[in-house]
Amino acid sequence: MHPADLLQASIERNRSVAVVGLDPRPALIPPALREEALGTFGDTAEAVAHAFARFNRGLLKAVAGACAAVKPQLACYEAYGAAGIRAYEDTVRAAREFAIPVLADGKRNDIGSTAEHYAQAFFGGAPGLSGAALAAPAPADWLTVNAYLGSDGILPFQSKPDHGIFVLVKTSNPSSGEIQDQRLADPRTGPAVSEAVARLVAGWGGNRLGASGLSSVGAVVGATYPEQARQLRELMPDTMFLVPGYGAQGGSAADALAGRRSDGRGVLVNSSRGIIAAWQRADTQRWDEAARGALDAMNADLARA
Amino acid sequence: MHPADLLQASIERNRSVAVVGLDPRPALIPPALREEALGTFGDTAEAVAHAFARFNRGLLKAVAGACAAVKPQLACYEAYGAAGIRAYEDTVRAAREFAIPVLADGKRNDIGSTAEHYAQAFFGGAPGLSGAALAAPAPADWLTVNAYLGSDGILPFQSKPDHGIFVLVKTSNPSSGEIQDQRLADPRTGPAVSEAVARLVAGWGGNRLGASGLSSVGAVVGATYPEQARQLRELMPDTMFLVPGYGAQGGSAADALAGRRSDGRGVLVNSSRGIIAAWQRADTQRWDEAARGALDAMNADLARA
Repeated sequence: MHPADLLQASIERNRSVAVVGLDPRPALIPPALREEALGTFGDTAEAVAHAFARFNRGLLKAVAGACAAVKPQLACYEAYGAAGIRAYEDTVRAAREFAIPVLADGKRNDIGSTAEHYAQAFFGGAPGLSGAALAAPAPADWLTVNAYLGSDGILPFQSKPDHGIFVLVKTSNPSSGEIQDQRLADPRTGPAVSEAVARLVAGWGGNRLGASGLSSVGAVVGATYPEQARQLRELMPDTMFLVPGYGAQGGSAADALAGRRSDGRGVLVNSSRGIIAAWQRADTQRWDEAARGALDAMNADLARA
Repeated sequence: MHPADLLQASIERNRSVAVVGLDPRPALIPPALREEALGTFGDTAEAVAHAFARFNRGLLKAVAGACAAVKPQLACYEAYGAAGIRAYEDTVRAAREFAIPVLADGKRNDIGSTAEHYAQAFFGGAPGLSGAALAAPAPADWLTVNAYLGSDGILPFQSKPDHGIFVLVKTSNPSSGEIQDQRLADPRTGPAVSEAVARLVAGWGGNRLGASGLSSVGAVVGATYPEQARQLRELMPDTMFLVPGYGAQGGSAADALAGRRSDGRGVLVNSSRGIIAAWQRADTQRWDEAARGALDAMNADLARA
């Protein structure tokens, strides 16, 4: 299935544009899971990985049917080496069981055959020693990528039509402007670096539209810069925006939805800590119910805006 | 030890600025290693990982004492999931046995606490479930990073004084100019995006010099654009350049060394396929000797330039 159509179907089925960020950290693991993992594995990377996988499975079960997708943050898993990567793979497989699309947040970037290896890492198809492709342990549906290296780093991801990429265009963090807001001398490519990247994104994705009218080349556009999101939408009319920065980072629901199309499509809004750490703010051990409650509140907030 | 001093000491001890890129692929694995791994593990990711680790160990033994550092390309390992990451970790540990500095080529990028997780993944220090830092299985000395997100994505890597980062400034690939060569409107930050990034690199690294006079914030500057390398050196006088693009990608020894300082310091030149695939070009099964021969020839080529 075309990856944008997969997302659009999930949005419509679940009446939600919310993406749940699965960014586990030891400090976010509920006490019962922590004690169980420490008892079994001691204070090791394996214990962390085991706890992450169990936490994520419970979260996935709780949010299934009420979100558009989940977004595991690779850095959280990589910090625990091979054991952490197994927890990532377990999480992707669990998301498939619950029919939740997976957006792998790796912000990968490299060129040519190296970019192909990243595509294999996240979408499958790596060759074995016999030369034949191996079965992928846990393919994601989308991957976030960084386009600083230009087309050489993007085109290798497009060989798999069932998978999509979100290109970093304008990120939500305070220092995003240091490079992204630099004004360009040539107004045909500008006015700023992020617009030049947006024009590239529109070009890479222009002939890759699904039945939903949206492309397999998406864009990361932060909720914290709503005016820029509106301008970027004009440059990328058929692009799915993945919007970080809602909630904890300061973006309101209206800010997060600023870049949507006139037909209402084309925006996914991520929340990580706002959902997976809700049990700590509510001071409850029912962490799965707290996550679902926070997601329901986020959906209601977005529906009002 | 300051990470630039570590590299400078290795350069002087081994009289080499060469970096050996450890970018294993199934098609580059010598037949004897391939047959052994297939016989033990079948046509699986574990077989690939086992062959990668054995190939790398043989390469490391062959190039020890004749190169400045090695640079494992993360994409090659990630393509094989958790098994591949174990092969990466085995490779880093083997490099330590041979006292070869390790530059992890991951081009990572994210912000705040997520960037901290990447620093933990590559340099160590990830907390366990008890909150105390776990022992790092295989810390690298340096990591390549992408600065598109600005300072928020760079500063978290600077909390570990024994480790350094190479920031992508001007890459060696044909499409690198699509973003990196965009001309800026404000000449104080320009003339182009890559110069704006270079000024940021000089700022991030300016007060982080080792006894060698070089900083723990380095730069990736491709061999294929020597004129730009000379200009970028003026903006980054104390920055170690990691130079890809020598050999296979078309850069000559003189091109690769174009960005060195007047005292001859500040440049490392990478070759991957030129060394690790030398056995195929020479049509020999002595792949370790072929790699060392190719490295010796590269060192001689660089010494002449």
